Amino acid sequence: MITTRLTQRFEMEHPIVCAPMAMVCGGALAAAVSKAGGLGILGGGYAGTIGEDADLEEQYRMAGNTPIGIGFITWAVEARPEAVDWAIAKRPKCLFLSFGSPKALARTALDANIPLFCQCQTMGHVREALDAGASVIVAQGAEAGGHGGRRSTLPFVPEVADLLAKRDPDVLLLAAGGIADGRGLAASLALGADGVLVGSRFWAAEEALTPSAAAARAIAADGDQTVRTTALDSLRGVPWPDEFSFRVLRNRLMDEWAEREGEAAADFGAMKRSYNEARVRGDLDVAATIVGEAVGLIHARLPAADIVAAMVAEAETALARGARQVS
Amino acid sequence: MITTRLTQRFEMEHPIVCAPMAMVCGGALAAAVSKAGGLGILGGGYAGTIGEDADLEEQYRMAGNTPIGIGFITWAVEARPEAVDWAIAKRPKCLFLSFGSPKALARTALDANIPLFCQCQTMGHVREALDAGASVIVAQGAEAGGHGGRRSTLPFVPEVADLLAKRDPDVLLLAAGGIADGRGLAASLALGADGVLVGSRFWAAEEALTPSAAAARAIAADGDQTVRTTALDSLRGVPWPDEFSFRVLRNRLMDEWAEREGEAAADFGAMKRSYNEARVRGDLDVAATIVGEAVGLIHARLPAADIVAAMVAEAETALARGARQVS
Repeated sequence: MITTRLTQRFEMEHPIVCAPMAMVCGGALAAAVSKAGGLGILGGGYAGTIGEDADLEEQYRMAGNTPIGIGFITWAVEARPEAVDWAIAKRPKCLFLSFGSPKALARTALDANIPLFCQCQTMGHVREALDAGASVIVAQGAEAGGHGGRRSTLPFVPEVADLLAKRDPDVLLLAAGGIADGRGLAASLALGADGVLVGSRFWAAEEALTPSAAAARAIAADGDQTVRTTALDSLRGVPWPDEFSFRVLRNRLMDEWAEREGEAAADFGAMKRSYNEARVRGDLDVAATIVGEAVGLIHARLPAADIVAAMVAEAETALARGARQVS
Repeated sequence: MITTRLTQRFEMEHPIVCAPMAMVCGGALAAAVSKAGGLGILGGGYAGTIGEDADLEEQYRMAGNTPIGIGFITWAVEARPEAVDWAIAKRPKCLFLSFGSPKALARTALDANIPLFCQCQTMGHVREALDAGASVIVAQGAEAGGHGGRRSTLPFVPEVADLLAKRDPDVLLLAAGGIADGRGLAASLALGADGVLVGSRFWAAEEALTPSAAAARAIAADGDQTVRTTALDSLRGVPWPDEFSFRVLRNRLMDEWAEREGEAAADFGAMKRSYNEARVRGDLDVAATIVGEAVGLIHARLPAADIVAAMVAEAETALARGARQVS
C-alpha cells in the first residue's frame, strides 16, 4: 500500500486517479477505479456544447452509489455553466477542470465545498488555478493522449512542486502524461507529486467506452507512433484555443495532415461531417485513436481493478529497489 | 551513495553523466564531473565539419589526467571519421554518439574495446544502436535542451527498459532530458534507468564554456520559456536531418521564427553570417541560449562538484521518502 497526502485527504487506498476522458470514462470505468481504491472521474467533456457527448445523466447513473468525480473541458463548459451546476448537485468527489481559465467556474464548486482539481499545462496555468482556489493541481505533460500543451511531465512536475511549496504548500499535486504503470507512479512520487492522473492505461480498461478495434490498434502500437497536432481539431471544426493540441495514434488521416497545421487551420471545419461519419462507422484510418506516448507500455485490455493492482505492486517494487540502491 | 549497474561497471561513485554539449562541455567541465564521482564527456560536436568548434585537442588537454569520455554528433562526424580515430586514440572512458545511425562509426570503438554509448530518440534508434554494439543506451526525451527528437523522457525510458530486458539485458540505460536535480535522478531510477545524462544543469556549471550572460538569462527563466523548433538550424544553415529539432530559450529571434518552420526551411542559410556574428558578439536576442525545460529548476551557477553532490543528496532523500510511503 502506498500512502500519500492524496490518499489521506481523499480517503483513497491508492494515489491513482483516472482521467475524465470524454466519451471514454463513463460511469462504469469511473466507478471501477474508485471501487479499486483509486478515484474515477466521469468525463463530461464538452458537456454537450460540441454535440458529440454521451448522455451525462445516464453515464453518471451507471456509477451507482460509488463516489466519483466529474470533469469538464473548461473553455467549452464556460458557455454552458448549467452543466457545472448539474455536476455540483451530484456532490461529486471533485470538480475537475482542464483547458482554460477556471476562474469563472470555480466559485460554484468552492461555494458547495466540492474540491476543485485543475489540470495545468504551463506555470501560468498553475498560478491561475491557485488564484481560483484549486485544492489539487494536475501538472500535465505533452506526452499525454488527447488534448494537452507543450511541457513534459518529468521536468514540469518538480517545477510545479517548487511553486506550490513556496506559495501554497497545502495544495496537492498530481502528475499526468506518460504514466501507465507502476514505474511511472513511483517516478511521479520521486518528482514530488502526491499521486498520478492516468489516461491511456484506463482508456484501454475493459470498462472504458473505447471501441475494441481502437483498443486493439493501441495495444499493437509502440510509443513512437503517436503524434501531437492541432490539425485534427481544425479539420473537424472544433474551436480549441491555440495553446492546446491533440495527441493521437498516427493513422492514414494523420500521416497526411499532422504536419500541415497551417493548412488545416485554413481549412477549418472542412471535414466536420466526414470525420463524424468516420467516427460513427468506426473507420480508424480517419477517426482518431486517442492515446498518449505511454501506449508503448500497454499490452492488454484489462479490468480497471487489475490495472490499479498491477500499478501499485510495480510501484512498490520500484520504490523498494530505489531504497536498496542507497547506501 | 547510490549504487547502480552503471557505477559498478564504469567505476563511478554516482550514476550521473555530463552530456557532451558541443562548445559547452570542454575539458574543464568534463574533468570536474569525473572528479566529482560522475562521468564527464567532452563535447566534440560537429568535429569541425561545421566550422564552429573549439580546438578539441586543446579542450581534451584541459582535462589533464582525469578519465573522461568523448562525444560527437553522428551525422556530422560520419563525414570526418578521422575525428573518431583521434578520439579512440585517447582511450576515452566511452565514445558517445548521438543523432544518426552509429553503424558506420561503431566498429572503431568496438575494435579498440572502448564502450559505445548511443543516444536514442526513438525505439527504432534503440534497435539500431543495439545492432551496432552499444553498451549503453541513452534514452533522450524532447524536453532536453539542444538537439533532440519527439519522445518524452518519462514514458520513453520504461519502454526502452522493456526492450532491453527482452533483447539485451546486459546493456545499460541512461535517462536524458529534463533531469536537473535529485528528484529527476530518483525518478529515472524508478523508471528503470541505471543512471542519468544531465545537460542543462551542467551547462550552467561554473566550469562550462557557457557565456555568463547566457547563464544569467537561463537562471532567470522558467521552464515554459523554451521552445523546440527546426527553424533555427534552417536559418543558420546547419543541415540537420528532418527528424531532429533544437530546443532553446525563447528570445527575439525565436519569438519571430520558432513557429515558422516551413518558411525558415525555404530560407535555408539566410542568416548564416548574421547569426554567427551575433554569436561572436554575444547578442542573445539573436544567438541561442541552449537549454532544456529543466531550466526552470536551475537557480544558480555552481561548481560541477556542488551540482553532483546536491543531486545525489536530493535523490537519496527522494528515494528514502518513497520507501517510507510504502507500507
